[in-house]
Amino acid sequence: MTDTHNGLTLALSKGRILKETLPLFKTAGIELLENPDKSRKLIFPTTHPSVRILILRASDVPTYVEHGAADFGVAGKDVLLEHGAKHLYELLDLQIAQCKLMTAGIKGQALPNRRLRVATKYVNVARNHFASQGEQVDIIKLYGSMELAPLVGLGDLIVDVVDTGNTLRANGLEPLEHICDVSSRLIVNQVSYKRKFALLKPILSSLKSASV
Amino acid sequence: MTDTHNGLTLALSKGRILKETLPLFKTAGIELLENPDKSRKLIFPTTHPSVRILILRASDVPTYVEHGAADFGVAGKDVLLEHGAKHLYELLDLQIAQCKLMTAGIKGQALPNRRLRVATKYVNVARNHFASQGEQVDIIKLYGSMELAPLVGLGDLIVDVVDTGNTLRANGLEPLEHICDVSSRLIVNQVSYKRKFALLKPILSSLKSASV
Ligand SMILES: O=P(O)(O)OC[C@H]1O[C@H](OP(=O)(O)OP(=O)(O)O)[C@H](O)[C@@H]1O
Ligand SMILES: O=P(O)(O)OC[C@H]1O[C@H](OP(=O)(O)OP(=O)(O)O)[C@H](O)[C@@H]1O
Repeated sequence: MTDTHNGLTLALSKGRILKETLPLFKTAGIELLENPDKSRKLIFPTTHPSVRILILRASDVPTYVEHGAADFGVAGKDVLLEHGAKHLYELLDLQIAQCKLMTAGIKGQALPNRRLRVATKYVNVARNHFASQGEQVDIIKLYGSMELAPLVGLGDLIVDVVDTGNTLRANGLEPLEHICDVSSRLIVNQVSYKRKFALLKPILSSLKSASV
Repeated sequence: MTDTHNGLTLALSKGRILKETLPLFKTAGIELLENPDKSRKLIFPTTHPSVRILILRASDVPTYVEHGAADFGVAGKDVLLEHGAKHLYELLDLQIAQCKLMTAGIKGQALPNRRLRVATKYVNVARNHFASQGEQVDIIKLYGSMELAPLVGLGDLIVDVVDTGNTLRANGLEPLEHICDVSSRLIVNQVSYKRKFALLKPILSSLKSASV
């Protein structure tokens, strides 16, 4: 069995994006029938007869949408910048899950006078940020818990998303440079946008009204 | 404050590796004083006066050990193969958390007669595996839930670790090619191995006895 779904496949991720996105999709008649936090399933039917939802890792959302395995999805601007996300349409700023991409370091500690080491899961964002300042840095790729790295000498700085700043503070770190603002974006596969426009259009309209 | 820890820093990851590793470290007099599953902390003291434990993402363990942010750690062979892990010593096969790296596809479905697409978080492992068979494939990098990908047309095959096979079966997939066996390995930073050998030696001996 290959995929024979003729409706729309929507890619979302667990956590804050899901919690803040679902009320928006509700205005488009799309509601989950079951709580993904309490299920091992990955594909969920919805109250909308033509829409099913995939629950993915946040970093996988642009990949599924680019390849057409999902027709549309919601991803943070941080994830889109890191991914590249060149072959999809970023149609709407949903203005939810807002935070900032920032550099951070140990509170009050001067940076060493040599090429800096930056530990982050946002390797492309970090490289571009420092390159735009004419600064060459060594990047250490991490997958989680960036706030730990400087505390054990892994890197002089981190690049991470900051919301309340509590995570940084709790670890004796301080935010340094603001890289960019982050919010969740509605992304659409380019082929789906043409071929399934009739199905997508009313959903996009509802989301647009709901997210202003 | 930079890192001023003079003892040993041990890097572990949550989940199966932690559960199966802790009894081994107990024989070396190293026990956690608190349950990391119930804590937001990332650095944990232990019953051993010279040893503290970092709880990391599995994929980050070799990175911390390579850079000396941890002196030693436990990582799955799957993670070590994917990471490269060239600048550290792999000293001991702990023979725990055993599983297999395998290719898998939709049960009973013939593979298409074109360049195959392989969805996986093990991009290096997958590339090497197919290259060793003289086969060029397109790799789609994912971060989680590989078993979903073929179900929605993202890739013809996946490469993932398989233990009981339940995850594959529950998703209508079947294991195809065996790539290699996986178990957890004790890894040690090369500088720490020399400089801190006196501290490491009794721990390594206990682990060696406990893991046969
Ligand atoms: O400034 P704060 O309000 O403390 O928020 C920042 C935290 O949020 C993000 O992690 P998230 O909780 O999204 O989970 P993750 O670590 O799994 O990415 C980020 O990595 C920080 O840890
Ligand atoms: O053959 P099985 O017994 O079903 O085990 C295989 C599962 O274990 C691994 O995931 P894990 O539970 O380690 O978590 P992860 O998906 O977060 O890597 C793997 O990705 C499979 O999902």
